[in-house]
Amino acid sequence: MSALSPLLAAIAQRIGAAHVFTDPADMAPYLHEERGLYRGEAPAVLRPGSTEEVAFIVAACAQAGVAVVPQGGNTGLVGGQMPFGQMLLSLSRLDRIRAVDAVDMTMTVEAGCILDKVHAAAEEANCLFPLHIASQGSCRIGGNLSSNAGGTAVLRYGNARELVLGLEVVLADGRVWNGLKRLRKNNAGYDLKQLFLGSEGTLGIITAAVLKLFPRPAQRATAFLAVPDPAAALALLKRLRGEAGDALTTFELMAAFGVETVLKHMPGTVRPLGDTYDWYVLAELSSPTRAFDLGALMEEGLAAAMEAGEVLDAVIATSEAQAANLWRLREDMSEAQKHEGGSIKHDVSVPVSRVPEFLDRALSACMAALPALRPCPFGHVGDGNIHFNLSQPVGMEKAAFLALWERFNRIVHDIVTEMDGSIAAEHGIGLLKRDELAHYADPVALDLMRSVKLALDPAETLNPGKVIGVGVG
Amino acid sequence: MSALSPLLAAIAQRIGAAHVFTDPADMAPYLHEERGLYRGEAPAVLRPGSTEEVAFIVAACAQAGVAVVPQGGNTGLVGGQMPFGQMLLSLSRLDRIRAVDAVDMTMTVEAGCILDKVHAAAEEANCLFPLHIASQGSCRIGGNLSSNAGGTAVLRYGNARELVLGLEVVLADGRVWNGLKRLRKNNAGYDLKQLFLGSEGTLGIITAAVLKLFPRPAQRATAFLAVPDPAAALALLKRLRGEAGDALTTFELMAAFGVETVLKHMPGTVRPLGDTYDWYVLAELSSPTRAFDLGALMEEGLAAAMEAGEVLDAVIATSEAQAANLWRLREDMSEAQKHEGGSIKHDVSVPVSRVPEFLDRALSACMAALPALRPCPFGHVGDGNIHFNLSQPVGMEKAAFLALWERFNRIVHDIVTEMDGSIAAEHGIGLLKRDELAHYADPVALDLMRSVKLALDPAETLNPGKVIGVGVG
Repeated sequence: MSALSPLLAAIAQRIGAAHVFTDPADMAPYLHEERGLYRGEAPAVLRPGSTEEVAFIVAACAQAGVAVVPQGGNTGLVGGQMPFGQMLLSLSRLDRIRAVDAVDMTMTVEAGCILDKVHAAAEEANCLFPLHIASQGSCRIGGNLSSNAGGTAVLRYGNARELVLGLEVVLADGRVWNGLKRLRKNNAGYDLKQLFLGSEGTLGIITAAVLKLFPRPAQRATAFLAVPDPAAALALLKRLRGEAGDALTTFELMAAFGVETVLKHMPGTVRPLGDTYDWYVLAELSSPTRAFDLGALMEEGLAAAMEAGEVLDAVIATSEAQAANLWRLREDMSEAQKHEGGSIKHDVSVPVSRVPEFLDRALSACMAALPALRPCPFGHVGDGNIHFNLSQPVGMEKAAFLALWERFNRIVHDIVTEMDGSIAAEHGIGLLKRDELAHYADPVALDLMRSVKLALDPAETLNPGKVIGVGVG
Repeated sequence: MSALSPLLAAIAQRIGAAHVFTDPADMAPYLHEERGLYRGEAPAVLRPGSTEEVAFIVAACAQAGVAVVPQGGNTGLVGGQMPFGQMLLSLSRLDRIRAVDAVDMTMTVEAGCILDKVHAAAEEANCLFPLHIASQGSCRIGGNLSSNAGGTAVLRYGNARELVLGLEVVLADGRVWNGLKRLRKNNAGYDLKQLFLGSEGTLGIITAAVLKLFPRPAQRATAFLAVPDPAAALALLKRLRGEAGDALTTFELMAAFGVETVLKHMPGTVRPLGDTYDWYVLAELSSPTRAFDLGALMEEGLAAAMEAGEVLDAVIATSEAQAANLWRLREDMSEAQKHEGGSIKHDVSVPVSRVPEFLDRALSACMAALPALRPCPFGHVGDGNIHFNLSQPVGMEKAAFLALWERFNRIVHDIVTEMDGSIAAEHGIGLLKRDELAHYADPVALDLMRSVKLALDPAETLNPGKVIGVGVG
């Protein structure tokens, strides 16, 4: 009988034995993560059904000195949701939409709601919840908030952090902080929810949230463009934002390699333009008002941009199906890249105005290090966020290529840091970048982070060893 | 020779004797605050000229065990900027605009910049910095950020917290945290800037910030309307937001008493409508695009609203001068109220949908307590934020009326708390509401706040006794 048996027995009694998995086959889906970088280990997978049950588990584990790793949809890209000997606490059964209010423009949801379910509930109330990321069919909102997710609508709506009005959180000792306020303004003391947003479950476990909703778009105009280079893309960004203002909701840059990779591997994708080019942009206008015609605005903007040499060729979707096809060229990129072998990935950001310089420098440095490399940079150029992915040379051994990960990290992250950028733009730190953060971050910042961690989780029982290593973690 | 003399001598040597005020006449402007509720006391007013000088002062004071109170423009409404025996550290000499970038849409400013100067620098770059509050001619951006200021454009642009990308902060021990990133996405560890935004100088002293800019509006439509009641105002809010989307940037509710008070006391103000009504709304559409006509949109929206009985009468400004006159009816309200004697003020918020119920309940309860009371509720109904001000009965002694402050606090704040609202919407806690916060806040929340305070300022030398009382403070 293991030393954990009394603890697991108490938990099973409280949440039901059917929700305590210890069989490896039952646990497997929770312990493999998408990138295949980590294989988790846990004495048990615990699946509480309510905030009170989460609190019970956390309190019981804390008393037993056992650490807990919270997990949402297990779609995280940096290993933050993986246990390495700790209890795995899945939030997936907390999946109720508690309330939607179309006047307040708010929605109260439990942490385990799948993001697409949140979207659907907002739309039912004729509203928009604007967080859109590739994994939205399986990721869960608690994980999105814990990792301060970004996505393709940040340009207009901000990151996940900015979409939250209130939180309910289970603290390290099992107490529940009920901060589920539906308020647009609240300066009654420190804004505690900010501690838990983006801290990847290391300071508390988010069990529910009040989300901001927005008016639902009544029209869209989606365009796919060829641009001569990233600098032209930036000029076009400035032009479209000046003309369309808030209606410019998406502006994504892609290198030719990525687009060709999607066209090659993803069934049903269609070449958007007659010719091939080095760089492409997906731009979308959307607006809740029908007071003006976004299609006409896009056409005029692109015509002027072509005249100015910022755009070489362009197509504007004339149907929703065509718009969906254009979106696939961007959204299927990570998936398509898997067909080209190993990929060393960097999720970085720099000031928007410095994206062209970053791409120049990083591409040159990486090609110098490995001339047969096939770079696949793409991303949210309107946010200065580039997924600087590197596909392996043709014919190289995948494992040999991936063994270069740290070397390319140093090349890319050195440049990012010199340019006052971030080595972790929207995917978080987790375990994958913990040592990178320790390497690059300002010692004062690291010290502040450690102080906050120790103030909220002094025994280090919440997701230990993630984001920052405090003690032995 | 006072015990502080060696400390002051060291500071004078570092920042210049001309910037250390100890003469009561020199110190007076820093020790009187706008509402006249507090009279501060300080051994000296210190006016450093750089971040390094701020850090020197804070380190020297910390070593001497002397507490420091930071102050911006001294326009705070809750006493947060007032010293009571501590050193007063004025940020007013740190007033440089360090950089403006119209592609990044960012601006790096020092804490002592007057808000209007920030506006002007943004406009020079054809951008908008959207924080607008009544004191913008004298308040300073560091204070705005420390108090997470709100104002009349929150509906579209969010509170001050949401307008910040990076901060530079002097910590309690005098170390400088340089978090002046110009990044739209950055998940490299905990988002430390959130600790300092809205914490009123109790966790660190903000010395500089990177602000978000927005496209500058190219057109506006400003309307002043009579509505039958607050519920109709909410219906109109929903209608205009549905039709104009993000272009609805201001939506302010005012009771008749406030508007009449402005018309009576403020020279040059003009009655906007032919008749008098119980409730008024100031609504503004603004947009950076000229692709559609906001005036026509406003006209159509109001015509439909009149048909639906949501609006009784309306005027749409046909010139900038007329728009400015309409704005004065709202902006001069606090000033005008001073002419009607004492005012007991509450800065509260509730969920937007519950504003009518809140007004009903709070007005009834206050009138029952003092039937000759003259309530003057007004505010940002689109944010659920009401300035629930109560003017004294005609002929009552001002001091006798103001002696009822705590009694009315209890009446109003009890109702707000029952309605899941906030007793401090946009003015902060400071000293004025510290004990109210302790009375109403969830003990778990208070405990978290204390933990954070002790983690960042263990010796309690930063603005002690404000927001939360930790030790003896």
